[in-house]
Amino acid sequence: MAELSEATGIPVPTIKFYVREGLLPPGRPVGRRQADYDGGHVRRLRLVRALADYGGLPIATIRELVGHLDGGDRSGYDLLALTQMAMTGRQEPRGGPHLAAAERLMGEMMTRRGWSGSQTAHPAVRMAVGVLAALGELGRQDMIAALDAYAAAADRIAAVDLGVLGPADDRERAMELVVVATSLGDALVAALRRIAQVERSQPLRTAGPAAC
Amino acid sequence: MAELSEATGIPVPTIKFYVREGLLPPGRPVGRRQADYDGGHVRRLRLVRALADYGGLPIATIRELVGHLDGGDRSGYDLLALTQMAMTGRQEPRGGPHLAAAERLMGEMMTRRGWSGSQTAHPAVRMAVGVLAALGELGRQDMIAALDAYAAAADRIAAVDLGVLGPADDRERAMELVVVATSLGDALVAALRRIAQVERSQPLRTAGPAAC
Repeated sequence: MAELSEATGIPVPTIKFYVREGLLPPGRPVGRRQADYDGGHVRRLRLVRALADYGGLPIATIRELVGHLDGGDRSGYDLLALTQMAMTGRQEPRGGPHLAAAERLMGEMMTRRGWSGSQTAHPAVRMAVGVLAALGELGRQDMIAALDAYAAAADRIAAVDLGVLGPADDRERAMELVVVATSLGDALVAALRRIAQVERSQPLRTAGPAAC
Repeated sequence: MAELSEATGIPVPTIKFYVREGLLPPGRPVGRRQADYDGGHVRRLRLVRALADYGGLPIATIRELVGHLDGGDRSGYDLLALTQMAMTGRQEPRGGPHLAAAERLMGEMMTRRGWSGSQTAHPAVRMAVGVLAALGELGRQDMIAALDAYAAAADRIAAVDLGVLGPADDRERAMELVVVATSLGDALVAALRRIAQVERSQPLRTAGPAAC
């Protein structure tokens, strides 16, 4: 286990914690106080650490995701949907006066884009409806009005995602990529979006009236 | 306070907690056990709740953000950058064999896009470098190779963001929009991206070889 720690840069107590929590299979015992770890352990350990560090996912969710990886009872594209669901969570939007309007807006946008209505139960749709309802509560009609523009931009990101995914015939690779793309991918796009915002507002800052 | 709770749908104990934590100014006292709340309280309360619920931000960060809103000592575009920094956090990427390569890749991409090098200390750049280093550790060269495509897509989202923001001469509105756009906006794009991924993989699922 000391060698495993050295290979990955992850402290031994953290590795022990992951094994205890069922996120990492135990090594093959050799002798009384020794166990054998292989390349699969190194890879899994790095994945778990990335999900915890960059995905910010709770242990229970990570356990569920690596369980799907090990299970091997689903097609690549089914795993894509399953993984997304686990990562998106199942929090129903709070009720309130703006919920019905948010559901209608979301449905209309999906129709305009030709996105299938059969998805309305997908947690990502519920998540988007929740965001729209919150924007309605805050009186942010300006952001709500940009919904189609955001959907078009998100569609371009998904095109890049699917291009990276490639044919999903290697199930393990596809599943792992979705886990990584969904957790690290959100963080990557969020970071690039902030940088782009600063870049785009830079000329406004210098060209505009003097700020105090 | 009962009326404030009724107007916003937020329970009285939660409102009391927000006041105690300095996220919401106390009402104007009238009589011994009564206080007056106005439209500003309703608006602030909804904003705080949205930041906690959808932004997933810790109390200390929310306190810092509403402090900037109340402070009024910065220009609108300065607040944009300040808010982003608070929302992005200041976590330095862990060291490791892939950090230097990640920094180089990020720098090269920024040069290709004409994004200013002066931003390298921005937490969003550190965050992107951290994600790239994690992808390197996981051996995900396929995702790393798509960095320019992700940056182009993120740039389009930022263009929508800035279009919604409009002229930042109304400082309070601009600041509030950035807070909302950054927290709820990330959730909105993440949700739309997942929906678009499912839409784009749907034909592959039905047209491909039968899945078990």
